[in-house]
Amino acid sequence: MGLVVMKFGGSSVADADKIKNVARRVMETRDAGNKVVVVVSAPGDTTDDLITWAEKITADPDEREMDMLLSTGEQMSIALLAMAIKDKGYKAISLTGAQVGILTDKVHNMAKIVHIPTKKIRKELRKGNIVVVAGFQGITEDEDITTLGRGGSDLTAVALASVLKADICEIFTDVQGVYTTDPHIVHEARKLDIISYDEMLEMAGLGAQVMQARSIEVAKKFNIDIHVRSTFSHEKGTIITREVSKMEDVVVRGIASDKNQAKISIIDLPDKPGVAASMFTELASKGINVDMIIQSSAADGRNDISFTVSHKDLLKTLEVMDKIKRELGATEVIHDRNVAKISIVGVGMRSHVGIASKMFSALARAGINIEMISTSEIKISCVIKNVHVEKAVKVIHKAFNLDKKKN
Amino acid sequence: MGLVVMKFGGSSVADADKIKNVARRVMETRDAGNKVVVVVSAPGDTTDDLITWAEKITADPDEREMDMLLSTGEQMSIALLAMAIKDKGYKAISLTGAQVGILTDKVHNMAKIVHIPTKKIRKELRKGNIVVVAGFQGITEDEDITTLGRGGSDLTAVALASVLKADICEIFTDVQGVYTTDPHIVHEARKLDIISYDEMLEMAGLGAQVMQARSIEVAKKFNIDIHVRSTFSHEKGTIITREVSKMEDVVVRGIASDKNQAKISIIDLPDKPGVAASMFTELASKGINVDMIIQSSAADGRNDISFTVSHKDLLKTLEVMDKIKRELGATEVIHDRNVAKISIVGVGMRSHVGIASKMFSALARAGINIEMISTSEIKISCVIKNVHVEKAVKVIHKAFNLDKKKN
Repeated sequence: MGLVVMKFGGSSVADADKIKNVARRVMETRDAGNKVVVVVSAPGDTTDDLITWAEKITADPDEREMDMLLSTGEQMSIALLAMAIKDKGYKAISLTGAQVGILTDKVHNMAKIVHIPTKKIRKELRKGNIVVVAGFQGITEDEDITTLGRGGSDLTAVALASVLKADICEIFTDVQGVYTTDPHIVHEARKLDIISYDEMLEMAGLGAQVMQARSIEVAKKFNIDIHVRSTFSHEKGTIITREVSKMEDVVVRGIASDKNQAKISIIDLPDKPGVAASMFTELASKGINVDMIIQSSAADGRNDISFTVSHKDLLKTLEVMDKIKRELGATEVIHDRNVAKISIVGVGMRSHVGIASKMFSALARAGINIEMISTSEIKISCVIKNVHVEKAVKVIHKAFNLDKKKN
Repeated sequence: MGLVVMKFGGSSVADADKIKNVARRVMETRDAGNKVVVVVSAPGDTTDDLITWAEKITADPDEREMDMLLSTGEQMSIALLAMAIKDKGYKAISLTGAQVGILTDKVHNMAKIVHIPTKKIRKELRKGNIVVVAGFQGITEDEDITTLGRGGSDLTAVALASVLKADICEIFTDVQGVYTTDPHIVHEARKLDIISYDEMLEMAGLGAQVMQARSIEVAKKFNIDIHVRSTFSHEKGTIITREVSKMEDVVVRGIASDKNQAKISIIDLPDKPGVAASMFTELASKGINVDMIIQSSAADGRNDISFTVSHKDLLKTLEVMDKIKRELGATEVIHDRNVAKISIVGVGMRSHVGIASKMFSALARAGINIEMISTSEIKISCVIKNVHVEKAVKVIHKAFNLDKKKN
């Protein structure tokens, strides 16, 4: 007996049969004696269809009106799911973000949650209702409808779990859980039973798209256990939870790769204080998110700096760098779109030695050249040519025996 | 310079081009120096599509959740229309029924408006905004979303025009206005420049489907002029307004017909007080709406009663009548689905004589038998066989010279 927040994504409510399946999952959880709050996304392609409508009206849709438009998708889902549940004789009620009172800031299309009052939901739970809440949406203090941006429904679920002090937040998805690496690349990839918030944050930031980083950050901040599991099976998935010392027994939890990387190098910069600072300040002021940075000094008082950005920022970056080159008197700026980042993640790294060398050796044996390296307490990342990514993931997965169960 | 409420139905906002056309109409009204409030219905088939979704979920959708579902249709329209207007550099804001605060009772699927606060709309008008309001929907005091039933968007428009003290309420539709009769039946049918509330109420009640009766009742109660006109042309349509003495110059304003009628006769009822009362009380208690009633007494102390109901109530009516027949000792109950009602409407009837005889003569000359007659101050209705309806409308239209302009 507890309070469970269950979240289902758009593919889980894409048609009437899938909505009925979700209703069954929800009723099973209710039958087990739990109070249940369900968060749902818009059905399947609904959001894309709505965006297409808007694009036919104008090339530059007003952001407030876009939120007004898009929020109808989740409203459809909650109504249909509540109908499906009530049809089976269970008590249920659907609530929009506005009806719950999910207060956000005024940044339309990517609003931040400011406050969630619990009065309305608690009242409906006391009446015995399964409470079906629209994900992804909120309301400003002026009662304008807002949406939370990518991964918004996950965020709604985790935030509700937090304010309601839920026992667990279940994120239902079309995969079985979080894997040691992408099963499409490595067939031996293994579903993890457990992963820490920090490990999951590193994995999410590296392109493992099970959940967006900001939902995990909220879960970590408020210590909400998340259970990532499949909508279409009853098997246990992966628990994302706070770190416990036992987790350090596992050195490497998982491997993530990211092909959406470009490497930029500026050659023969003057070796004087403030050069790097002014360069990265300029890039930051243009909204460019710089990832890995390495600097190599030569003896003659000049040096090179290399860094990575995502593909979408590459053109803007090259414009800025061209200007910097002339201002600082560097020789040239070179770039490479065909690189990728491969990373191993695990809280156990902190208490184990020789992890980096094991990774580097595995790559070396496979004949893969490492172009850049960066490390954090729980992560080691290497930039390599992107043609080598699949091979790299495979050899590292094997080197750390990730196919063998350890957690 | 005034305040104009404009209402556009679903066919006027069925696709992106039509929405842009509506935006142009709205901006023209704004350019003429008016403050503008626009009410829109859900785009084209959206409501039907949503109902189909619900039917796939359950045969008996919960009414609260149905309102939650259906209200997304108008929310789509207001967002898209506000986008289209803003795209042209005009100021606009969309508001749901809940955001306006359209308070209704709790009768889901056919709620009644209880109160409309004007604060929010007036505030947005003062800011220079064109205010785009979702028709058809409201909110209960518990913040549950409700819908107003058939013709609900017209009702929203007329009610808003009333509380905002608008100068005019324009109802845009796919016809040019209100006609002397159905132009599909009589090619010479003429668009009326003006019609009184009472005449329009009779026409609406008789199946002239330009507007639902309850919107006209509200307009009459609060003395709101309604301009029924075409979305797709700039010609003037028909003004529905309060009766002025000049209107009596025209004897017959229009002709309406209704094929959705069935006639029931109960034969040989005992001729004693209270028989008719008990029968119609019983029918009313079952929610059956009885229209025309005639009673014919025979000399032998027994009599027959005939009345009409709509087709949908026929089966229920026959069940009730079978019981009444046994209780009262009548001989038999007979019925006829193949009847229709044809009516002439006009406030001028009150001050003119010979109108009924002219109507009956026209029908007689055409060889059409009259089965029942009922009259009111401004209406004469006849029940005839429904195969004769088109012919009857034509001969009466001609008899009263309705193709000639008189108003």
